[in-house]
Amino acid sequence: MKVLVCPSGFKGSVSPETAADYIGAGILRAIPTATIRKVPLADGGEGFSHALVAATGGTIRSHRVIGPIGAPIHSFYGILGNTTVKTAVIEMAAAAGLSLIPPESRNPCMTTTFGVGQLMAAALDEGVERIIMGCGDSGTSDGGAGMLQALGARLIGRDGRDLPCAGGGQSLVSLAGFDFSKMHPGLKKVAIEAVCNWKNILCGPEGVAQVYGPQKGASPTQTKLLAAALETYAVVIHRTLGMKISDAPGSGASGGLGAGLLLIGAKLRPRYDALREYFHLENLFIDCDLVITAEGAIDDQTPRGKIPAEVALRARERGIPVIVLAGTIGHNAQVNHDIGIDAFTSILQRPSTLEEAIEETERLLTEAAEGAMRIVAIGRRLAV
Amino acid sequence: MKVLVCPSGFKGSVSPETAADYIGAGILRAIPTATIRKVPLADGGEGFSHALVAATGGTIRSHRVIGPIGAPIHSFYGILGNTTVKTAVIEMAAAAGLSLIPPESRNPCMTTTFGVGQLMAAALDEGVERIIMGCGDSGTSDGGAGMLQALGARLIGRDGRDLPCAGGGQSLVSLAGFDFSKMHPGLKKVAIEAVCNWKNILCGPEGVAQVYGPQKGASPTQTKLLAAALETYAVVIHRTLGMKISDAPGSGASGGLGAGLLLIGAKLRPRYDALREYFHLENLFIDCDLVITAEGAIDDQTPRGKIPAEVALRARERGIPVIVLAGTIGHNAQVNHDIGIDAFTSILQRPSTLEEAIEETERLLTEAAEGAMRIVAIGRRLAV
Repeated sequence: MKVLVCPSGFKGSVSPETAADYIGAGILRAIPTATIRKVPLADGGEGFSHALVAATGGTIRSHRVIGPIGAPIHSFYGILGNTTVKTAVIEMAAAAGLSLIPPESRNPCMTTTFGVGQLMAAALDEGVERIIMGCGDSGTSDGGAGMLQALGARLIGRDGRDLPCAGGGQSLVSLAGFDFSKMHPGLKKVAIEAVCNWKNILCGPEGVAQVYGPQKGASPTQTKLLAAALETYAVVIHRTLGMKISDAPGSGASGGLGAGLLLIGAKLRPRYDALREYFHLENLFIDCDLVITAEGAIDDQTPRGKIPAEVALRARERGIPVIVLAGTIGHNAQVNHDIGIDAFTSILQRPSTLEEAIEETERLLTEAAEGAMRIVAIGRRLAV
Repeated sequence: MKVLVCPSGFKGSVSPETAADYIGAGILRAIPTATIRKVPLADGGEGFSHALVAATGGTIRSHRVIGPIGAPIHSFYGILGNTTVKTAVIEMAAAAGLSLIPPESRNPCMTTTFGVGQLMAAALDEGVERIIMGCGDSGTSDGGAGMLQALGARLIGRDGRDLPCAGGGQSLVSLAGFDFSKMHPGLKKVAIEAVCNWKNILCGPEGVAQVYGPQKGASPTQTKLLAAALETYAVVIHRTLGMKISDAPGSGASGGLGAGLLLIGAKLRPRYDALREYFHLENLFIDCDLVITAEGAIDDQTPRGKIPAEVALRARERGIPVIVLAGTIGHNAQVNHDIGIDAFTSILQRPSTLEEAIEETERLLTEAAEGAMRIVAIGRRLAV
């Protein structure tokens, strides 16, 4: 039996790559003769760089940057293999992700994407001609202001002075203009593509401060402050650069990093078009009998473009069954049967908290894969 | 596909019968053409009467009795179908079970098996010639003293007066003798078999007060008091009746109800010998392709005679695969693969408390059965 193992990651727990290893081990426990192909997938957030590096045979570069709360952190980006154009992959969450911020420090008024810009600068320094930026799992809401500063931009306040470096989203409330004259020279030659959720926009009632601020730790007052700051940001961009970005698709991605990327000529790509291309989803299913994928949760939002749904839609076209291993089976998950997810099962084994489950993800995921494949084996026996 | 659905119950949640219904519904959602045979099983505790009545086509009788804390409760016993000898089945938990006692009232010094004796008396009144008593899930530790009193026994204290009626285990500390002259006349003609764990004995360091007292709510002081009272009980029985029951196999079953039953001539049977006979386990697997059973937990104790293990051992002899749906997958559950449990899966779907899971058992069990059968169906597709 040939099994394609193409999990997404379990946020805050294991990367797609590690998840694929655990699942593969579980499958072999149940069916030692199985042939396993591992293709870890990620949607732009945590695990995106490693997944894309794994898919292309590339390499990971370590790089030290200023983290989201201003302290230095170890970060990384990837250089893809198998490309004619030298290409870096950067996941913004590696330098400004929510999981890098201790719960007591979660305040998206203050956190910064400065480190994201530093990763881009490092990639430019080594001469990449293309940057693929993964958005998702951010802990910031600074409109990409920190990223711009790290790349050499000056953000100028109403008093004529520079805004504080890496000052976070709230500092944008006194923004009056930009100076892009000292930007990294590599930016002139590089093509930047950002993989993001096109539904996320910068301003307004559906803007990024309102929608994501609270889950990044903003109080109601902080959320209002952030929304006002990002509104000022959009107004100043419109007035000084002539760009209308307040409701551009993807402008709100990763706390408005999408907007900042637009200012430096990035192309924002809707997530799944990009993934389809980068991961060659169309070719995944060649010579494959069964697909096992995994994600932290499966629910009635899954069909709206989550990785298991994208995988299942394509597997179904080829008549290949799909099993999803999930941390949580959420509301009305049954709808996923209609899009080609033939079965799903939770990896949980006992009443527990999320934290307890996360501590045991390796065992739970391995044993869930084993359990599912043992039942597959029962089905094969019954058919004989 | 012919599926045998033979679950045990989920303690404190759903009976074996109800579990079988939920599982059956889930199977049909996945494979509408499946043929399902439901044989709910129980090991003597909660659900035993209904399971045995279901297995034999018998009937349930409602009967009002004094409950374990002295207040009246609605209880029941069963009359088996398909028997030449009129037989009642009584689960002691229906009149003295732990789940009948609010947590704040759990004190096994005080709780009584009086209601168990009342159920027996009611069965004798309608002329049964055989009583099958299921032990397990008790909330009492009175050595069956309450049961004896309800059947007409006098328990006489050192002061020559009767011990209080339904006084609980602690009253036995002043026991001096018995008067069995006014016992229910039906007892002379009835054969009583008690299904119990033979490892449970009345006295000593491994005695029932020490081993089970705390989980029934006894403080360390209360546990000592109970152990002393049951020691007195055994000594008085030995001196006045010549019976040595302090370490007789099963004498400690259901808080010493086993000892009380020995006094009225009951035969204590090790649990699984009895179940094999009553549920005709040998015949369960005729014309069956797949077995689905279920229990609250599966772990490395399961092979020591728990229902899924007993089922699996017999299914394996016939080459029939077995899937277990469990609330909790516990320590080292893998050992169950060696005894014929081909696969197991937890019914849980998200991080939660036991109480939250219990509230949703219907949905969880139904969907777990559906999920497992969907994976079985995948296996059948792959074999073609």
